[in-house]
Amino acid sequence: MKPYVLGIDIGGTNTVFGIVDARGNVIASSSIKTQKHANFEDYLEELYVEAQRLIELNDAVDKIQGIGIGAPNANYYNGCIDNAVNLPWPSLPLAHLVSDKFGIPVAVTNDANAAALGEMTYGAARGLKDFIMITLGTGVGSGVVINGQVVYGHDGLAGELGHVIIKRNNGRLCGCGRTGCLEAYCSATGVARTAREFLEARSEPSLLRNMPVEDITSKDVYDAAMQGDQLAKDIFNFTGTLLGEAMADMMVFSSPEAFILFGGLAKSGELIMRPLRDAMERNMLSMFKGKAKVILSELKEADAAVLGASALGWEAKPMPAAVAGL
Amino acid sequence: MKPYVLGIDIGGTNTVFGIVDARGNVIASSSIKTQKHANFEDYLEELYVEAQRLIELNDAVDKIQGIGIGAPNANYYNGCIDNAVNLPWPSLPLAHLVSDKFGIPVAVTNDANAAALGEMTYGAARGLKDFIMITLGTGVGSGVVINGQVVYGHDGLAGELGHVIIKRNNGRLCGCGRTGCLEAYCSATGVARTAREFLEARSEPSLLRNMPVEDITSKDVYDAAMQGDQLAKDIFNFTGTLLGEAMADMMVFSSPEAFILFGGLAKSGELIMRPLRDAMERNMLSMFKGKAKVILSELKEADAAVLGASALGWEAKPMPAAVAGL
Repeated sequence: MKPYVLGIDIGGTNTVFGIVDARGNVIASSSIKTQKHANFEDYLEELYVEAQRLIELNDAVDKIQGIGIGAPNANYYNGCIDNAVNLPWPSLPLAHLVSDKFGIPVAVTNDANAAALGEMTYGAARGLKDFIMITLGTGVGSGVVINGQVVYGHDGLAGELGHVIIKRNNGRLCGCGRTGCLEAYCSATGVARTAREFLEARSEPSLLRNMPVEDITSKDVYDAAMQGDQLAKDIFNFTGTLLGEAMADMMVFSSPEAFILFGGLAKSGELIMRPLRDAMERNMLSMFKGKAKVILSELKEADAAVLGASALGWEAKPMPAAVAGL
Repeated sequence: MKPYVLGIDIGGTNTVFGIVDARGNVIASSSIKTQKHANFEDYLEELYVEAQRLIELNDAVDKIQGIGIGAPNANYYNGCIDNAVNLPWPSLPLAHLVSDKFGIPVAVTNDANAAALGEMTYGAARGLKDFIMITLGTGVGSGVVINGQVVYGHDGLAGELGHVIIKRNNGRLCGCGRTGCLEAYCSATGVARTAREFLEARSEPSLLRNMPVEDITSKDVYDAAMQGDQLAKDIFNFTGTLLGEAMADMMVFSSPEAFILFGGLAKSGELIMRPLRDAMERNMLSMFKGKAKVILSELKEADAAVLGASALGWEAKPMPAAVAGL
């Protein structure tokens, strides 16, 4: 077994990558702009040159065991991304192409599944066999781990818990085209939408009225709440309550030992955690009451994406010819 | 490997058991009354005597590989039933006691998980690795299979999908004490409740008005619908739509290849299947549209409970001393 893996996180804006050792130390990392090249071959060439430079600088030539990639809509089974609308090249056999270029085995999955692997390998989920990772970012992602294995489902795409329906009637329009999804409420953008709704529906004074309503971000709501603003606190109560209700429903599916939260909203601390825990326990089927811990990610935010992707690198295998030939 | 297993299904009224071979043939079966003995030792003695009689009659002495038991609130990991309110002895170390009595390894799980195992071993799920079993009876039960394994979760009690919340506001009171559960709508009792609600809320004529409203069963609704009664058909539309919406939500969790339906309501055919399939696809996240089959159980209803429980018998192992000593 070689001592390192290469983790690559392909986001809509940046592609971050790093060399990681078995204990989760990021030896070195760098990034390139995802959108710079409309042509995937040009993008891959830049990624390869940059990564090789990093590898040579850190005496890691021939020491990379595997490459793990987190990317939107990435399918663990066939190594493809499919209809990833935020990328310049939404559909292609990603694992195959990267593996060909680097001459190293590659495995891919979506960023939330990668985050779950990262927590299990290096973070808050070490030693846990049954947990659900929830990433609270611009959207809401999830990775479900059962018996120590990430659940990929029949088609490689399982674990889209940001798209469970939490408002069956008159729910908000979600980016997926449906209405009432968890993501439309409990993401950073969801919090900003709630702020706009609350400001319109209520007349009380609020620090949030000092800025143009369309510019309000979840960070602004956090800052106002920390200054004691009641309306801002109510926005977090609303958000945490909806997430807690949704988590009570997730519990009956796989009865996890813990939920692990990651991302900007998770860092809002008790502002969101208190209503979340209250709502989760209040809505919990009695047989599961008090059983699931809610804990925060232990990965540094700057490293988390690379660490998550890199964790997958340890299980990357040379592709069978049938798949590689896609 | 011995050629037979003993399957035991412990229901609130009857305990049904049978000798089953590896191909799912029920060699012989019998039953006793679950409620006859307030004392579990007396119940177990009667069960043992009856089962031994069956075993001897069928030349199966020393040919039983294991015993599988399906029972309410039965925990796969520790072999216990816990707070099973419909049984005379709601909490006890069931697997341990039965194994001691018979001198044969015993495994237990709840009836819906047993049904999933039964379908996977002998029925409609042969060859499927990722599916969700939904049992539509007096209540709604479920068994989730991922990667060919029943999901038991951290505590052995996972897969209670009858208790996902499908009406967040003003939902019906469920037997679990909460409101809005799937089970309160899509069980046989749920259909009867819907009938009473519809009859009260609407004024049109209906065959269902010919009987005392409190006596209406789901079977009466089925009979009326088959005679063309519009209100009865609407009850099935309502029920199937709610179930289909819930199934679309289940899909984002584990992306199963199929849902397998079992029980009286499932046998209502297109009355429930058409609205169910329509609602499931209409509410499906686009990446999963058209991917999941909805199929009916292939186990004969009379044998299904015994077959399901028996399937668990093949994986029963002698208990480790630490667990047996509970």
